[in-house]
Amino acid sequence: MIGVLWSFLDTFESNFRPLVVVELAKGTKKETIEWFTKRIVDKKANGGAQLLVKPLVTEKGEENIYLVGASHLRLLLGAETVGLVKECNDNSMRTFTYSSRKTFRDFADDNHNFLTMAECQYIIKHELENLRAKDEKMIPGYPQAKLYPGKSIVRRLLTSGILVQIFPLHDREELKKLRHSWYGRVKVGYQPLDEIRCYFGETIALYFGFLEYFTFALVPMAVIGIPYYVFAWEDYDKYVMFATFNLLWSTVILEVWKRICAIVTYRWGTLLMKRQFEEPRPGFHGVLGINPVTGREEPVYSSIKRQIRIYLVSLPFVCLCLYFSLYVMMIYFDLEQWALDYHEENESNFSSLMLFVPSIIYAVVIEIMNRIYRYAAEFLTSWGKKVVYSSSLNTNNKYFYLQFNFLNCFASLFYIAFVLFDMKLLRQSLATLLITSQILNQFAESLLPYWLQKRHKKRMKKRMSSLKTDTDLTLVEQINLEKEMGTYFGTFDDYLELFLQFGYVSLFSCVYPLAAVFAVLNNITEIYSDALKMCRVYKRPFAEPTANIGVWQLAFETMSVISVVTNCILIGMSPQVNALFPDSKMDLILTVALVEHLLLAIKFIMAFVIPDKPRDIQIKLAKLEFESLEALKQQVRATDM
Amino acid sequence: MIGVLWSFLDTFESNFRPLVVVELAKGTKKETIEWFTKRIVDKKANGGAQLLVKPLVTEKGEENIYLVGASHLRLLLGAETVGLVKECNDNSMRTFTYSSRKTFRDFADDNHNFLTMAECQYIIKHELENLRAKDEKMIPGYPQAKLYPGKSIVRRLLTSGILVQIFPLHDREELKKLRHSWYGRVKVGYQPLDEIRCYFGETIALYFGFLEYFTFALVPMAVIGIPYYVFAWEDYDKYVMFATFNLLWSTVILEVWKRICAIVTYRWGTLLMKRQFEEPRPGFHGVLGINPVTGREEPVYSSIKRQIRIYLVSLPFVCLCLYFSLYVMMIYFDLEQWALDYHEENESNFSSLMLFVPSIIYAVVIEIMNRIYRYAAEFLTSWGKKVVYSSSLNTNNKYFYLQFNFLNCFASLFYIAFVLFDMKLLRQSLATLLITSQILNQFAESLLPYWLQKRHKKRMKKRMSSLKTDTDLTLVEQINLEKEMGTYFGTFDDYLELFLQFGYVSLFSCVYPLAAVFAVLNNITEIYSDALKMCRVYKRPFAEPTANIGVWQLAFETMSVISVVTNCILIGMSPQVNALFPDSKMDLILTVALVEHLLLAIKFIMAFVIPDKPRDIQIKLAKLEFESLEALKQQVRATDM
Repeated sequence: MIGVLWSFLDTFESNFRPLVVVELAKGTKKETIEWFTKRIVDKKANGGAQLLVKPLVTEKGEENIYLVGASHLRLLLGAETVGLVKECNDNSMRTFTYSSRKTFRDFADDNHNFLTMAECQYIIKHELENLRAKDEKMIPGYPQAKLYPGKSIVRRLLTSGILVQIFPLHDREELKKLRHSWYGRVKVGYQPLDEIRCYFGETIALYFGFLEYFTFALVPMAVIGIPYYVFAWEDYDKYVMFATFNLLWSTVILEVWKRICAIVTYRWGTLLMKRQFEEPRPGFHGVLGINPVTGREEPVYSSIKRQIRIYLVSLPFVCLCLYFSLYVMMIYFDLEQWALDYHEENESNFSSLMLFVPSIIYAVVIEIMNRIYRYAAEFLTSWGKKVVYSSSLNTNNKYFYLQFNFLNCFASLFYIAFVLFDMKLLRQSLATLLITSQILNQFAESLLPYWLQKRHKKRMKKRMSSLKTDTDLTLVEQINLEKEMGTYFGTFDDYLELFLQFGYVSLFSCVYPLAAVFAVLNNITEIYSDALKMCRVYKRPFAEPTANIGVWQLAFETMSVISVVTNCILIGMSPQVNALFPDSKMDLILTVALVEHLLLAIKFIMAFVIPDKPRDIQIKLAKLEFESLEALKQQVRATDM
Repeated sequence: MIGVLWSFLDTFESNFRPLVVVELAKGTKKETIEWFTKRIVDKKANGGAQLLVKPLVTEKGEENIYLVGASHLRLLLGAETVGLVKECNDNSMRTFTYSSRKTFRDFADDNHNFLTMAECQYIIKHELENLRAKDEKMIPGYPQAKLYPGKSIVRRLLTSGILVQIFPLHDREELKKLRHSWYGRVKVGYQPLDEIRCYFGETIALYFGFLEYFTFALVPMAVIGIPYYVFAWEDYDKYVMFATFNLLWSTVILEVWKRICAIVTYRWGTLLMKRQFEEPRPGFHGVLGINPVTGREEPVYSSIKRQIRIYLVSLPFVCLCLYFSLYVMMIYFDLEQWALDYHEENESNFSSLMLFVPSIIYAVVIEIMNRIYRYAAEFLTSWGKKVVYSSSLNTNNKYFYLQFNFLNCFASLFYIAFVLFDMKLLRQSLATLLITSQILNQFAESLLPYWLQKRHKKRMKKRMSSLKTDTDLTLVEQINLEKEMGTYFGTFDDYLELFLQFGYVSLFSCVYPLAAVFAVLNNITEIYSDALKMCRVYKRPFAEPTANIGVWQLAFETMSVISVVTNCILIGMSPQVNALFPDSKMDLILTVALVEHLLLAIKFIMAFVIPDKPRDIQIKLAKLEFESLEALKQQVRATDM
């Protein structure tokens, strides 16, 4: 039945709306372009993507940029293919199918806003990526670019350098509205998450949702932390109280986030969307096989070979990096000692300022090392591949990178706390590291690229204005601007920043209660600078449906468990607590161990008791599952009778 | 369509096979019997159960026992109602529906063994329990037994004492075969789990599967433990090794059990069976409401009221029991002291034997207290209700009972270990408690009831033999025998026994490595005595589909975490380890704490890394989910076009 619809579908439509830009290398052979565009336009039955393509004629008459769009009907059929979940008229969320389109809220045959632009672009990306070689042995015109049945054409074009990039187009009108409601005016209130989701997709909206939630969640810690600084409280019982509150609070906020996440992604439909049934990303190598779940023919990936390669290549590299990072740490301690000696010899304002210099230098070096490690890891993974529209860090390397960052940032603090036992240095070092890294990050991630981007735009505009004759020029101008913008490589780095910040706040919270205050201040500006980055600095990223923050939930929870241990040890080491047990160090340690075990037990019980999904979402999910199974029964019945 | 089938279904069938026995109180009014049997026989459309009923005519002409059966077609339709999952011809597991019956393996219209007898009885139980009042205000003939729309009739009959019991009938032939292959011959090998499942249902088969698995899993511990006893090893490093092995091993076995459980229950179909979509058990009170998941009208239960009642009634009771149990423990320590004094004063063989007497007495008292607590808790829950065919301990009370048992059994051991620091007494007390409780349990659970049952049977047989004239006599005889047999109240007590045994083995494993040996020996006889109990002592229980061992998985895992802590402390306290740190107790404690944290971390990582379900089961489950969602799409499409 769907088959009939596909053949009805015409590739011509009068009101062509460009959605995605395909940039080919300059001087790409004619036959290649013809073959590629034909495959994009070709009917599904012939193995094409059945999309619309239009060349962008620039002032120089060059034809290396193509605009891809699709008819409304094509997009609706694509929405069914990717399994979008939409709200029905009866308020339930259901997987969209073309034939049941009338049951969906806000659906009308002439309502072109039923699918958001981000969704349309996601569909087109999915279709382009799934354009697979049939019996071609190579890309026409490029005998060295081999193809085999089932190989993603776009992927091969990218790796052989013929295709420079694919990116979705900004919608100037929408973007202006979004910018205004997001950060355009000074206001107290939440971010427009639903609008962000419509424009940038669920992954990015969820990141901003988490950033906002996390900032609010830190406020109580910050409020409780301020008097410790103002009144210079040093009583042990107050520190114990603060640490205990922090530890239990962090458990609560992480559990509550799961619930909020479920509510939000249920509304967005991604909670019900099944990722595992999707066809593998075109990045996968391998020959065609049968997917055991869906029964569809698709490329199968051998994961053992990949695992071995990762361990053989990555492990020695990681060890090397770790060694280097520890070496740098030792240099930092030497510097610190030198600064201290200097301060003792010639005590002055300058020398006491100098005390902070080693920490600041170390913080800068850490940031630089993190970035170098990142690029090196990416180079190792991609190794001869050309990657353009998504970060090449795969999951395993992300774990390595995460651990490396963790050690890089916290090794010195652990060393100071548990080897040197120097609480004053720990506090000073913690503060300097936290503040320096925050300033550096905000500068390197948003402000610097923004400034570069602005300068570039000005130059472009100057060049363009003299040629404003073609009616299409604004589009050409826009595309020329956007294609030079940087690429946003996903939310990994942004989450990592939050993760490290959470470490600074919670691992040593009883030593430096003010950390939460700095974290809150940073995050408020972070929301704005990240928003600026998304709207102004980078190319528009493709939307990526997601139902949760993935591995980060586990990472934050692990950090929260580790911080129970560190805080208990720190409190046990504090002189105030030691003074309570003048006779026996043993009693002290036993008490600390007992308290730690109690706290851990409470944490686990709390995590167990608080349900991950609110009751009404649980019921809705169970209802859908029940209906699915009933439908399966009915279907078997119908086919059999 | 199903509706049409229901009306075709005739309630008369020539070859009536009795499946379930309904015993009414003697002297039940005629009109009540007529009404009840009519409701059982009545068509589904009239609110009946559409089953077959036949009175059992005994020698005295009394008519208080009824046999319930069902036609083959009725059972198949019932299998669809309860959602049985069966294997298809293509080896996949699917929810059975009558219309798709031909696609299922071994299905034939004349094959009456497609459903096992246990499944048939489960279906009949389900149908009887779901026989609900329509507009009756009371049970006819008993104005005090009130009814309201939706109230389970069987439940009201039970609580008002009109219905004495409902139980499934044994199948002598099958039982004989099962007994033979289960414990009838001496053999080395596994239990016939699939046959047990066919006869007794999944819950009981899974218990025996777990018992067997657990016994095998204990063998390595036992093997490693024996030389400690034989060579009287007291080196600390050997104990550390043994404890470390134990702790990691217990994590592995619990994780592997989940995988085995998934494999087994997938084959049985219960892994796919959805319990949460079932209608609530007739035990629930309350008025009719709409189930938010299935959209069906069914009794809704207010859980807040129940919670409050539980806490108001149960908590003080539990506290009282705990106080009493601690009081008994103190008396035990006095006795122990007295025995020790006696032994020191007059040293002889008799006095050294006397040393064990307090522990043995205490073990007996613990068992008695556990049972008293159990009956008291059941009395508190049921309070004026008459419960016959299932244990009345609800989930919350089960938790209380579990905790009470745990404290009752282990409080004295914890006290000896961590307050008295007396390792010798701990070992002696542990050994006595473990062995005494095992002997007592085997005796009280299986052998004593078996002996009583045998005596009763002999007496019955003697009485019967003189009257052997009626052709139906063997059935009458069988029913008269079975209705007097004890009722098996579910696997809770059996699992509890294993759980406490696991505690004895793992909590103090480094003190008494021989515990695992006793556990293995006990479990081997336990399998036989439990099998005897199921086949010979108790009434046949109704089958209960289940996909896992439920809360016991969590209970065993928690025990395994607690034992990491206890073992680390015990090792830290041993004189051998103390001798390694002659200068500083602090270093000792810190080392112990470090090792403990490492072990806990390894445990959690292992539990995280080992997948709960084998990959092929995961794929099969994902495939079913995928097909369900596809079917839902198709269905919406079909209804809409």
